Amino acid sequence: MAHTIRDIALALGAEAVGDLDIVVTRAAEPHSAGPDALALAMDPKYAGGIARGGALAALLWPQADWRGLGLKAAIFAPRGRLAMAGLTVLMDPGPEIAAGIHPLSVIDPGAEIGAGAAIGPFVTIGRGAVIGPRARIASHVSIAEGARIGADALILQGARIGARVTIGDRFICQPGAVIGADGFSFVTPEKSGVEEIRETLGTREGIKDQSWTRIHSLGAVTLGDDVEVGANVCIDRGTIRDTSIGSGSKLDNLVHIGHNVQVGRDCLLCGQVGIAGSARIGDRVVMGGQCGVNDNIFVGDDVIAGGATKIFTNAPAGRVLLGYPAVKMETHVEMQKALRRLPRLAARVAEIERSVIPKSSGTD
Amino acid sequence: MAHTIRDIALALGAEAVGDLDIVVTRAAEPHSAGPDALALAMDPKYAGGIARGGALAALLWPQADWRGLGLKAAIFAPRGRLAMAGLTVLMDPGPEIAAGIHPLSVIDPGAEIGAGAAIGPFVTIGRGAVIGPRARIASHVSIAEGARIGADALILQGARIGARVTIGDRFICQPGAVIGADGFSFVTPEKSGVEEIRETLGTREGIKDQSWTRIHSLGAVTLGDDVEVGANVCIDRGTIRDTSIGSGSKLDNLVHIGHNVQVGRDCLLCGQVGIAGSARIGDRVVMGGQCGVNDNIFVGDDVIAGGATKIFTNAPAGRVLLGYPAVKMETHVEMQKALRRLPRLAARVAEIERSVIPKSSGTD
Amino acid sequence: MAHTIRDIALALGAEAVGDLDIVVTRAAEPHSAGPDALALAMDPKYAGGIARGGALAALLWPQADWRGLGLKAAIFAPRGRLAMAGLTVLMDPGPEIAAGIHPLSVIDPGAEIGAGAAIGPFVTIGRGAVIGPRARIASHVSIAEGARIGADALILQGARIGARVTIGDRFICQPGAVIGADGFSFVTPEKSGVEEIRETLGTREGIKDQSWTRIHSLGAVTLGDDVEVGANVCIDRGTIRDTSIGSGSKLDNLVHIGHNVQVGRDCLLCGQVGIAGSARIGDRVVMGGQCGVNDNIFVGDDVIAGGATKIFTNAPAGRVLLGYPAVKMETHVEMQKALRRLPRLAARVAEIERSVIPKSSGTD
Repeated sequence: MAHTIRDIALALGAEAVGDLDIVVTRAAEPHSAGPDALALAMDPKYAGGIARGGALAALLWPQADWRGLGLKAAIFAPRGRLAMAGLTVLMDPGPEIAAGIHPLSVIDPGAEIGAGAAIGPFVTIGRGAVIGPRARIASHVSIAEGARIGADALILQGARIGARVTIGDRFICQPGAVIGADGFSFVTPEKSGVEEIRETLGTREGIKDQSWTRIHSLGAVTLGDDVEVGANVCIDRGTIRDTSIGSGSKLDNLVHIGHNVQVGRDCLLCGQVGIAGSARIGDRVVMGGQCGVNDNIFVGDDVIAGGATKIFTNAPAGRVLLGYPAVKMETHVEMQKALRRLPRLAARVAEIERSVIPKSSGTD
Repeated sequence: MAHTIRDIALALGAEAVGDLDIVVTRAAEPHSAGPDALALAMDPKYAGGIARGGALAALLWPQADWRGLGLKAAIFAPRGRLAMAGLTVLMDPGPEIAAGIHPLSVIDPGAEIGAGAAIGPFVTIGRGAVIGPRARIASHVSIAEGARIGADALILQGARIGARVTIGDRFICQPGAVIGADGFSFVTPEKSGVEEIRETLGTREGIKDQSWTRIHSLGAVTLGDDVEVGANVCIDRGTIRDTSIGSGSKLDNLVHIGHNVQVGRDCLLCGQVGIAGSARIGDRVVMGGQCGVNDNIFVGDDVIAGGATKIFTNAPAGRVLLGYPAVKMETHVEMQKALRRLPRLAARVAEIERSVIPKSSGTD
Repeated sequence: MAHTIRDIALALGAEAVGDLDIVVTRAAEPHSAGPDALALAMDPKYAGGIARGGALAALLWPQADWRGLGLKAAIFAPRGRLAMAGLTVLMDPGPEIAAGIHPLSVIDPGAEIGAGAAIGPFVTIGRGAVIGPRARIASHVSIAEGARIGADALILQGARIGARVTIGDRFICQPGAVIGADGFSFVTPEKSGVEEIRETLGTREGIKDQSWTRIHSLGAVTLGDDVEVGANVCIDRGTIRDTSIGSGSKLDNLVHIGHNVQVGRDCLLCGQVGIAGSARIGDRVVMGGQCGVNDNIFVGDDVIAGGATKIFTNAPAGRVLLGYPAVKMETHVEMQKALRRLPRLAARVAEIERSVIPKSSGTD
């Protein structure tokens, strides 16, 4: 798609200078941008690349000397990543899904499809499902009976929406995500080893040979507005009430959300995060990749957890966490520093023992 | 579905009191149960919710004063979660899959489908596959050539059953699971860096520039009876013999089982657990979410591993594990306590050095 | 498939002895090999099994006394796993995908399908996609508009290839993999908590209530030749340039590759590894299962990381890593040893304090 510099600046609400009629058809890193591309150089370190690439126009850091960089036009981006959001939504062609309902799809006559839908081949939509207006549903998606999805949904290839799942407006679902699998909830006839350990912290009586009986999931899943779910994510149904994700929250690829979990608004859960059953996560929580949250605990608003943090106990609002088990980030850094020095510390203690306690038996 | 209190108590094998003809159509948490719902209050802490919700009947803890709680009828549950299993199976409507074989499915004429099957649209079943009676197979499932599945299977949307996989009775497979992908097994022409390190524990000779050659998987996967597999789980084929999971074992979402792995009976592997190739897991093993097991090791019967435990070496039967690397739970707790005090311990050692070894050079 | 010992030896380029006309139809572990199977006994420890199983022929370690083992024929394998590669490729029947294009598939008339393709039912191929010769594409695969795939691809059930993805020759894709989901990239209008923490290492000013705006992915994914991708793997598109995986690299099940990541040649990334956005991984890097790599860092050529290693900072070429956070393997082993002795060390320090500093207040 071709855009003038004027149109791009207008879309970004940004200041533009120079020949605003220059047309670009793509965005590119400065060194690989030609005259057809808008060079992305929101930091002075990219200045050198502009000359090499030969772009006529660039998205620049504020107050950049655009003429000195050899440009014919420039747009200024006081907050580069925010400008990237505006620019990329403008330039993203989006997935090709033909308007209307593909004849090789199986839509239950009792399903309600909103106006302006585009539904690809090999899609199934179950009895009583309600899909809002302007939905774009790519090939191989299944939407089960009674699911309700708001306006402007984009659901990509092979995503699975379970029965009676409720989803708000502007939902984005990456390929292969499963929303509404059954919860992982089993019980033994008598007390199990895990129950014992939770009570005794490690001591076990006679181990019993027992099998697991399934607790079925009668609840579903509720997602708010503006939720995005990554590829191959799994969100389980609740046992009685719905598992829920608040409006504005985004889940990266391969995230696992257990049954009954409540995630608040505007959270970011990065790749491969796992939240065990019945945990509650506050608003604006950010978890780096591979974080884990124990079942039945509470993580407060605005908590930030670094990559691979394993949260075993309740975390108060605003806390910054790291480590396994999770501790305050400063504590983690201090502990790791001390741990690296530990072999040397042990040697020093041994030396003290030799020096001052001649008869000590404290060798290890 | 509507049930009388009498019918529910009968199904649970539980004692019921009051007006057993009261009809409920759903189960609910006490505060959100109306007169149409059975309130779930298996612990006295839920007593308050009952009055607020207005339920007529409840599932209660033993000896509860049901009349005092304002109820017209009650069922007593000496083991609440077990009652939940009975109640939820009764009330779960299950997925809607129409009886018979959907015309938009591709079933090889040489496949054998048991009596009473319900097979949804866009399903493929390969040559020589054998599916037991009363199978319910949702849309988009693929079952490859020569797979054999027992009676009463429930296989949900988009699950992938590979060639020659063998599965017992009452199999439950959540959406997107892949049973029978090829094993991850590669070899270099000459010794690789990884082989060297396993022998030398870290020292490496000259690093060679080599590419990987694939070892194909000639084995398949064997699952016992009553196995449940979570959404987007991956279970790889064996190299020569089958990868196997024993009867009664349950795998949560996104679990990874490598080639040749042997998992015993009645195990629970929670979300995102990973078992590397050729590991053997005993019976009744329980692993919390995100646990990892090294390749080629053995984890004994009745081992319990807390969340995110990384097991690098053989674990004896009955052991309770935690940590990276895994140690006994008590040891882990003790080590973590000591680690938190370590910065202070280091300060104390420095103080001792100052006090008693005036000439020590042991500052760090 | 039936093979003579002569043919197998020829295929392996290996020395064979005895009656080379013996025919075998499968490979088996020695104890379960009958006269129809080639026993796999590349190590003397399997000698006992051969007699029990009754195989006539075996793949043996060099210089083995094949006659003494009761065999009629033998093939010698100086490097057993390499012989396994040759043998298994010979004996693998491969997936059954009928030649030609299945009528229940949806191929855009503008797509280009190479000669000799086998495309299963319920496959979609988008506008302008180019598939090389001899592709085997199993059921339920989607290949979006503009994707380009080289010669001899094997793409298994339900894999998702995104728009404009470029893939080299001899690509193998296990079921459910998603190549080309959108990157996980969001920005807040004003500085977010995560940005603050990166700058201040843990200290936070007033927390702002902000929502996330999406940065769209204009880039795609580029895979080299001879790449294999495991089941339910996710590889995200780049923001501007493509996310890329070099030739010869292999990804195990459930691996997550974030946007803009660059993985080099001949790498092995085992099950559930996660690489965060914009990280660069060198050539011949091997990561054990569940490793994690922080965003925007660099991991040098020939790095080897043990299972569940979490790499937070740049790693120089050739380094062997373990731990969370990752350190040199020797350092990790030393630290863990010291940590196990730490409770005792603390007791020794307390004893020293009691002995030599009578008035110390250093109890903890």
